[in-house]
Amino acid sequence: MLDGASASLDRFLAPAAIAIIGASPDITKIRGRLLHLLRENGYTGHLYPVNPNYQEIDGLTCFPSVGAIGAPVDLALVAIPAESVLPALEECAAAGVGHAVVISSGFAEQGSEEARLQEEIAALARRTGLRVSGPNAEGFHNDVAHVAATFSPAVEVKPGEEPLRATERRVGIVAQSGGMGFALYNRGRAQGLTFSYVVSTGNESDLTASDFFAYMAQDPATSVILLFLESVRDPASFLAAAAEAAERGKPVVAVKIGRSAAGERAARSHTASMAGWNVAYDAVFAAHGIIRADDPDEAVAIAAAFATAPLAQGPRVAVVTASGGAGAWAADMLAGAGLSLPELSPALQQAIGAFIPAYGSARNPVDITAQAVLTGGLLRATELLCGSAEVDAVLAVVSLASEKRMAIDTAALKAIVARQAKPVLFYSYTLPSSLARKALAAAGLTIHTDLGALAAALGALVRRGAYAPPRAAALPRSAAPIRAALERSRGGLSEYDAKELLARAGIAVSPHRLVTDPAELDAAAATLGFPLALKIQSPDIPHKTEVGGVRLGINDAPSLRRSYDAMLAELGRRRPDARLQGVLLQPMARPGVEVILGTIRDRGFGPLVMIGAGGVMTELFKDVAYRLAPVDADGARRMLGELRIARLLDGFRGAPAADVDALAALVAQLSGFAAAHRELVQEVELNPVIVHRAGEGCTIVDALLTAAPAEPSGP
Amino acid sequence: MLDGASASLDRFLAPAAIAIIGASPDITKIRGRLLHLLRENGYTGHLYPVNPNYQEIDGLTCFPSVGAIGAPVDLALVAIPAESVLPALEECAAAGVGHAVVISSGFAEQGSEEARLQEEIAALARRTGLRVSGPNAEGFHNDVAHVAATFSPAVEVKPGEEPLRATERRVGIVAQSGGMGFALYNRGRAQGLTFSYVVSTGNESDLTASDFFAYMAQDPATSVILLFLESVRDPASFLAAAAEAAERGKPVVAVKIGRSAAGERAARSHTASMAGWNVAYDAVFAAHGIIRADDPDEAVAIAAAFATAPLAQGPRVAVVTASGGAGAWAADMLAGAGLSLPELSPALQQAIGAFIPAYGSARNPVDITAQAVLTGGLLRATELLCGSAEVDAVLAVVSLASEKRMAIDTAALKAIVARQAKPVLFYSYTLPSSLARKALAAAGLTIHTDLGALAAALGALVRRGAYAPPRAAALPRSAAPIRAALERSRGGLSEYDAKELLARAGIAVSPHRLVTDPAELDAAAATLGFPLALKIQSPDIPHKTEVGGVRLGINDAPSLRRSYDAMLAELGRRRPDARLQGVLLQPMARPGVEVILGTIRDRGFGPLVMIGAGGVMTELFKDVAYRLAPVDADGARRMLGELRIARLLDGFRGAPAADVDALAALVAQLSGFAAAHRELVQEVELNPVIVHRAGEGCTIVDALLTAAPAEPSGP
Repeated sequence: MLDGASASLDRFLAPAAIAIIGASPDITKIRGRLLHLLRENGYTGHLYPVNPNYQEIDGLTCFPSVGAIGAPVDLALVAIPAESVLPALEECAAAGVGHAVVISSGFAEQGSEEARLQEEIAALARRTGLRVSGPNAEGFHNDVAHVAATFSPAVEVKPGEEPLRATERRVGIVAQSGGMGFALYNRGRAQGLTFSYVVSTGNESDLTASDFFAYMAQDPATSVILLFLESVRDPASFLAAAAEAAERGKPVVAVKIGRSAAGERAARSHTASMAGWNVAYDAVFAAHGIIRADDPDEAVAIAAAFATAPLAQGPRVAVVTASGGAGAWAADMLAGAGLSLPELSPALQQAIGAFIPAYGSARNPVDITAQAVLTGGLLRATELLCGSAEVDAVLAVVSLASEKRMAIDTAALKAIVARQAKPVLFYSYTLPSSLARKALAAAGLTIHTDLGALAAALGALVRRGAYAPPRAAALPRSAAPIRAALERSRGGLSEYDAKELLARAGIAVSPHRLVTDPAELDAAAATLGFPLALKIQSPDIPHKTEVGGVRLGINDAPSLRRSYDAMLAELGRRRPDARLQGVLLQPMARPGVEVILGTIRDRGFGPLVMIGAGGVMTELFKDVAYRLAPVDADGARRMLGELRIARLLDGFRGAPAADVDALAALVAQLSGFAAAHRELVQEVELNPVIVHRAGEGCTIVDALLTAAPAEPSGP
Repeated sequence: MLDGASASLDRFLAPAAIAIIGASPDITKIRGRLLHLLRENGYTGHLYPVNPNYQEIDGLTCFPSVGAIGAPVDLALVAIPAESVLPALEECAAAGVGHAVVISSGFAEQGSEEARLQEEIAALARRTGLRVSGPNAEGFHNDVAHVAATFSPAVEVKPGEEPLRATERRVGIVAQSGGMGFALYNRGRAQGLTFSYVVSTGNESDLTASDFFAYMAQDPATSVILLFLESVRDPASFLAAAAEAAERGKPVVAVKIGRSAAGERAARSHTASMAGWNVAYDAVFAAHGIIRADDPDEAVAIAAAFATAPLAQGPRVAVVTASGGAGAWAADMLAGAGLSLPELSPALQQAIGAFIPAYGSARNPVDITAQAVLTGGLLRATELLCGSAEVDAVLAVVSLASEKRMAIDTAALKAIVARQAKPVLFYSYTLPSSLARKALAAAGLTIHTDLGALAAALGALVRRGAYAPPRAAALPRSAAPIRAALERSRGGLSEYDAKELLARAGIAVSPHRLVTDPAELDAAAATLGFPLALKIQSPDIPHKTEVGGVRLGINDAPSLRRSYDAMLAELGRRRPDARLQGVLLQPMARPGVEVILGTIRDRGFGPLVMIGAGGVMTELFKDVAYRLAPVDADGARRMLGELRIARLLDGFRGAPAADVDALAALVAQLSGFAAAHRELVQEVELNPVIVHRAGEGCTIVDALLTAAPAEPSGP
């Protein structure tokens, strides 16, 4: 069911009447191309060129202004100099135009003065109800209703060109870069994909990528969504759209640029947005089953897989190949993408062996040899593999370069593929001929030509197949004392304060004692037991080691007293100004696997929870997973599964397995704490946490909690 | 200068007369295609079909046997059933034929009986001097002399097709998989690459990939070499060819398949070779500046870069783009491949800014906007960047989809590119039109369409540009006592033995004492100083911890005696059979960065040296570098630079830098030791080695040395 905002976009994307403000007969100019491309692509509604300099353009009456049209207009395309845009939009609003796309550049992407002009457009939209896309947009193309409201060369009609259609499951593109949005469309079409819409959103003064994402999530014409993102401006709307798509089981592929410093610089400058914080995007994508693509070929290959194949029920792939070398290379690439290529059972090998020469191989990769492609062995092997429970997907690796012959019976292939709910993908190691493209399209398949992208696409079918929406983890009740303590502590929290707070929130911090008088040392030691660690506590000293404020491995009472005195003396010398809360005693942690656990509040998406390899590994190897908080224990376990230190936790090289249950529970608890107090908690870092062997729990060795600044800025 | 073997391949690759044994008029069959494709591609020499069933084929006299031809034959193509191949080759040898390519399958790739047949072919070659390529080969194509001696569809002549030629620097392909070799040729030609030869080597009964590699290394017609390898059968020849190519500055790109278990299974089964040990290949490639490619698109993109651009003098790239989004995406990909995109100086930004609209950006990526492509801004920006010292390469990111217009003045572009010895590469985010392909080819450039492959290609220009051939490290003199000790110890070495041996070879092992009588403990402790580590020494116990044979952190004499007694008692209980050499005492190592250092002897390529992150990181994160031994200290330093723990060694998060000089010296020494005693040393593992702060050296905490088995099997 469409809600109000989405329903209104129906008239945006499929307008009954379009005005082109700035229309020109010169089709080498952007403003001249708009009318030309709309007509070339078969737009059937009313078209009103607007330009005081012409009476008529291309046989259509040209109007001096929008107000002069005197008939209802659903959409205005605005392609005039930046300084004239605002008056033109005012006129649109006055004339009751529903939507406008501002193609013109020279707004926030140019400088601060121009940014003010853009803010006025936004204000106009709020004030008048005229919904505005852009400025600095490349327009959109509605491929269902034939509305090419763009100047992109990608929608140019090539005479005599027959569109290749491998599937009726349409892909919808939402792109914050028009150039890339239409490039993905261009690449996808060449492979036989069909599209619903390509929408470029430009500077997003009013309508955002999230608005169109939400529309496509609900839109029955769109089966797969492809997003090209620089920065999401309205995180709450984005999350709602993502949740909607996930709920409807509609696959979403996203490219998020701005990962590198230079990429971020570019993303920021050219659409005048703050490039988003990448881990937050990763967390959002993981939560909603959105598949991230790293390059254009990967994005198109993944969209093609979603549009032409069912999801995979597991990671086991059979490779059927006409070239042993190509098959082995494909096997390497698939293994590198985390897929498995199990050796087939003797029975299945024997069954397949009946259709291939003796010098082939049926192990997996199944090398049917070039010979058996001609004699039908490819189809028979594919059929047997589709019907077997030994693999979850089939990849055919063949050469489809010939413009003369198509060795594969595509009608038979179509029947085989249709019979089983199992992905069957084709890769050609030579560049496929158009003959082959058409033949495979008739069987409902595209031909992949990029081995890396193909491996990513198969991986996406597996990951999306295994996706489970996060279960709503129960939030801890927001106990008033915690809230009060957090509010009090906006000036800073010591480790002791942080641990007390976490303990009050139900998180099992390990035993410790705060000592403020040396006379208490012996009693504290008797309670905790040697060996002990000693740590200075002060809200003014977040980095204790830098002032000699940590002493480890204290084995007896005399050393304890000596260390205590020495530590305070050193603190007095180095930081006479620091407020001293006391000295924290805690037992030295038993051995285990070291991890780091934390939460951080993203300005847009809210609190995230993170878990990573401990010590230097976090930073050196980026072995970290993020999720939107809260996660439940299952979600936490999936995060752990993404880490390369998962093998360490499972018991590495014969070591005992670590207490993964306890760790998952701790991740879930901490994420719930951060979510429940999202306006008050900026960041929590438990570093290190030692995970002991199974059944023996975790030790939070150190804890840092930063309260949010006084002005909360939640999503 | 060509040596004998290479010279003889001239007549193989450019034969004056060819016999086709098994020729057929049916061009849908492999044996019929051979004659057809030779003629279609304009072979100008003598052609002799051989088949007793025909008098004439396609207007040529057909002979009943090779012997009946009665004229000199340089090359026989053999496409007859496996069981008839050997007699036919005997006949060739008798008739004085110089070379044969056996296309027929059904030899070692099929089974052990068929493998014996193949061995007979090898024996025939040795006995008669007939040089044989294959069996199970796809033949070759000589694109210089127009000899299409293959059945591959990749050499089919398409009527009306004009070959695209972006460069006269030809690429030569040597492939152990014919399917993949010709697929790389097919993909490269579509991009405008020109080729010298494509040679598929099949089962390599006689002529190997190394033979053709050596030929192309010397061949003036070949400027870039592209290798597709499953397993190198003759490592010494391969190393010689690689050294030759490196010495001549001829870039080599290699694909090595069989990285995954399934890939290895396939590589092994389909050409009946033992898939090689991958780290050895990495070590060989690194030593000779061979660039490894991971997928077909990457291989072709890298070859294209080498064929059309000079090497890069550094990693700084400027991206010039018509689409901000595409530029940012490219920036992300380049950064991911280790390239840098420095922000341009204000002066350069200002100079470029003169040619682009105000809403563009000259920072880097340089967003000239779509507008400025039309007005020449792309060329002006490229020219300024080529002439500046701020970047080492320029990447133009544009949309070249239009079949109607070519916005770039390619003659001007050609002049700009020619003026500077700096790589200029083009990427089109839309699929390029043939118009654009031709126009850029006229400027000497190909158009890249795969962003990942392009990043790899730019990275290859940088890495090859920085390549320095390993300097011949001086080998330690092979002191007789070391040799004697190694020979004595083939039964096994204790840690103490290993350390003594290394010390005698000049490697600074840290202080230690072997104690065989508890009465010696106090004196040893006095020499070494507490805290101490104690380790049981026995040639029968390689894993000391498993029998309680290691005690750490012993702080005083009484504990020392207690630990000594306890350790021996436990050993007596657990392994009463073990020969006890004594107990090793060594001081506990001071803190530092933990690494693993070792050597291993590859059966084919000889000793390799490896250095990696210590502890669990070696295995979890595969943070390891390998080289052929020996390396000198500079080479060792380059290995360290490849590790992700390089940051740790350089002083991480304010920690002091580690003694990289000492570590590099140790790597060099150990590699020299392994190289000098290559027939005697199987494996050395120093694990861990603790690298202390700069100036304080390294501590070899544990050492394991395995002597080679009695029968040496060097390369």
